[in-house]
Amino acid sequence: MWIYTDKISEYENKEVIIKGWLYNIRASGKLLFPEIRDGYGIVQGVVSKSDVSERVWDDFLKLTQESSVIVKGIVKKHPKKTDVYELQINDITIVNIAEPYPITLKEHGVEFLMDRRHLWLRSPRQVAIMRVRHEIIQSIRDYMYQNDFVLFDAPIFTPNACEGTSTLFSTDYFDLGKAYLSQSGQLYAEAGAMALGKVYTLGPTFRAEYSMTRRHMTEFWMMEPEMAYYDLNDNMDLIEDFLEYVVQRVIKNRKKELEILKRDTTKLEKVHKPFPRITYTEAVEILRKKDIPLYRKTQNGEEEIRPFPWGEDFGAPHEEALVEDFEKPVIIHRWPSAAKAFYMKRDPENPDLVLGVDVLAPEGFGEIIGGSQREDNINLLIERIKEHNLPMEEFQWYIDLRRYGSVPHSGFGLGIERMVCWICNLEHIREAIPFPRRPNRIRP
Amino acid sequence: MWIYTDKISEYENKEVIIKGWLYNIRASGKLLFPEIRDGYGIVQGVVSKSDVSERVWDDFLKLTQESSVIVKGIVKKHPKKTDVYELQINDITIVNIAEPYPITLKEHGVEFLMDRRHLWLRSPRQVAIMRVRHEIIQSIRDYMYQNDFVLFDAPIFTPNACEGTSTLFSTDYFDLGKAYLSQSGQLYAEAGAMALGKVYTLGPTFRAEYSMTRRHMTEFWMMEPEMAYYDLNDNMDLIEDFLEYVVQRVIKNRKKELEILKRDTTKLEKVHKPFPRITYTEAVEILRKKDIPLYRKTQNGEEEIRPFPWGEDFGAPHEEALVEDFEKPVIIHRWPSAAKAFYMKRDPENPDLVLGVDVLAPEGFGEIIGGSQREDNINLLIERIKEHNLPMEEFQWYIDLRRYGSVPHSGFGLGIERMVCWICNLEHIREAIPFPRRPNRIRP
Repeated sequence: MWIYTDKISEYENKEVIIKGWLYNIRASGKLLFPEIRDGYGIVQGVVSKSDVSERVWDDFLKLTQESSVIVKGIVKKHPKKTDVYELQINDITIVNIAEPYPITLKEHGVEFLMDRRHLWLRSPRQVAIMRVRHEIIQSIRDYMYQNDFVLFDAPIFTPNACEGTSTLFSTDYFDLGKAYLSQSGQLYAEAGAMALGKVYTLGPTFRAEYSMTRRHMTEFWMMEPEMAYYDLNDNMDLIEDFLEYVVQRVIKNRKKELEILKRDTTKLEKVHKPFPRITYTEAVEILRKKDIPLYRKTQNGEEEIRPFPWGEDFGAPHEEALVEDFEKPVIIHRWPSAAKAFYMKRDPENPDLVLGVDVLAPEGFGEIIGGSQREDNINLLIERIKEHNLPMEEFQWYIDLRRYGSVPHSGFGLGIERMVCWICNLEHIREAIPFPRRPNRIRP
Repeated sequence: MWIYTDKISEYENKEVIIKGWLYNIRASGKLLFPEIRDGYGIVQGVVSKSDVSERVWDDFLKLTQESSVIVKGIVKKHPKKTDVYELQINDITIVNIAEPYPITLKEHGVEFLMDRRHLWLRSPRQVAIMRVRHEIIQSIRDYMYQNDFVLFDAPIFTPNACEGTSTLFSTDYFDLGKAYLSQSGQLYAEAGAMALGKVYTLGPTFRAEYSMTRRHMTEFWMMEPEMAYYDLNDNMDLIEDFLEYVVQRVIKNRKKELEILKRDTTKLEKVHKPFPRITYTEAVEILRKKDIPLYRKTQNGEEEIRPFPWGEDFGAPHEEALVEDFEKPVIIHRWPSAAKAFYMKRDPENPDLVLGVDVLAPEGFGEIIGGSQREDNINLLIERIKEHNLPMEEFQWYIDLRRYGSVPHSGFGLGIERMVCWICNLEHIREAIPFPRRPNRIRP
């Protein structure tokens, strides 16, 4: 019976078939210890020269790393290690002998591995990351489904940009001129919320920025819920409930993978609501108290500005300083309007502020969520579109959402790969997606 | 307490708040019957002039279609209709009075509606379709999750094309020249299957074809599972099990929506495995017996070819003839190699055939699935790439999957919107996605 290695403990003392690839093999006198991976895990086999035919023994000696094999054997408890099972192999079928495999068990440089991403994905660390990514996305979708959000796939081809066209990829589109690749499904999700109450998008988004940081890609996945009749507080309540669910479920269901990644999950176990909520203005005060300056380059070179000026956006050192005293994600709300997008609603109590909300992951993983209550006043929205020099004509359909039954509404965007980085403790976003796309890479 | 209308039966004789939009309103003497939609359904309210304040009564008289309102009232069983609940309204807050709404309850032309897609989505029919779409996609993901497939998001930006670049959208990509928008994640999913065993992709795909049929869009969503160590029969077994699960779950969970769509679900109830499986050659024999010709245009006009020639692909009339005797999806396997993609494995018993498989939906909804066992022989694969004049250099990574531990493997692609058309009984694919993209439309 063909089984996957993650189910092996259910078959103690039974004969099973494993179909996979040779990960490694050791010899010790008249014993061979092949390790076979099948994508679900790695099982150690034991081949005893005295128990198998000459053909079987010889076949094992022919194997190279990553050769594909079908092996048959009896599942046995490991003599010493608890909860570990081995396979006493009695037969093998060689499917394919691999040519010398470029990725050996020693260390390789990142560009070498990225050029071989299609093979690098087979390594236990990459397999573990992909399985955690899978669990994160399924958890998100299950949360949304169970909470009566409707999936609302936003279009990728758009005639206009959410926040201007300067950082957009474009393509020729028949007789209609250019189509731009969406950098956010939000505006469409707002139409969805007016139709369906609560919706979410989850799909790829694109930014044509030449940014080579460890947190940026040109193509990344984003989840964007949008809710009619939700104000900023409802939005923050949802963020807390949602993040708690996803984090707790992933660490429960993907223990094995997080162990492979050497992730300290005690920190993730603390992600329970409520989270600390501070205003942007309070955040600036914290930075000033901690003496975290803003570095800004002037024409003459580098200039240090102290204390942190109200109105500026936070960089990595500020984000790190803001989360270091907390063990949970930190919610920062009410941002300077000048720094934020045109669609964010002004704070009725202070027109210099918008009802925006960002969430910083703990442990210095930076911003994972950005959201806001949306401007629902048609006149203020039109004003903002003008202020931002956006093409009014292209936004008429969006303005319609305020023309016909405008309601308070809110939403946010979660960067999937940043979430993967946080949960898996990845230093660089390139490992968080099967085939990362960055300004210098579209291959393989 | 704020509730959504789909939960109203749980609140009989209790006071609740509904937040929504005015769908319609009728007056009858001293009674008003406003219908309020909230995205989850439509509830009929009853406003009795003798029971409410003058302000409340007057507010209702001000309402226009799609005005946003918050109403409070007591949930009551409908006096005559079973399982229907109404709201005895005692208070109202007007959130926004809508300008005259362009989509009235009478009929409108399709282009008129498509220009107002952001508003058209609010109509009960469109809401029902979106909820069925949501259930279909969640069912697919749940099936994959429960059966230990790993989500493997394929890249959108690709340097090369699965089946040539002639029908691809392209964008400038920094110093790397052009990037093409993926029309299938399959080749990447194959790398995923070699790493993870069983994977699936589910994301948008793109075809730059000027095709204005009722079954084509330039941007559509596709689900593509890929399984290591699966042969053609395993692939067909999976297709049956998978389709049965999705169809049965959707008709169970979305009864109300399918009723709104007037879908005859007795036909869908019959979608249980096994499905009829016929070879392409048998399908051609059926067409000949049924006397379904192939029409082909020659330079001189129209020419009729009789009987149907072996080797040709099926058009809509052939697909309809092939499914009309069956009540289930029809699986057609073993296709002429000349008509199919380079990556399909040749039938070891007949080199004129490939181990491809298409699935035709019942009731004339056409092809919903296309798949195959993949060519796992490196030499034959290289030959095919040459025959198809594909750029060998760009396929080296794909050939690597045969160089390092090649295994038999299979997969298929399911068009999400075609599935939505079938389940919802839609005549045209443009209703199967929130914002359809076709050669003449990228707005709104």
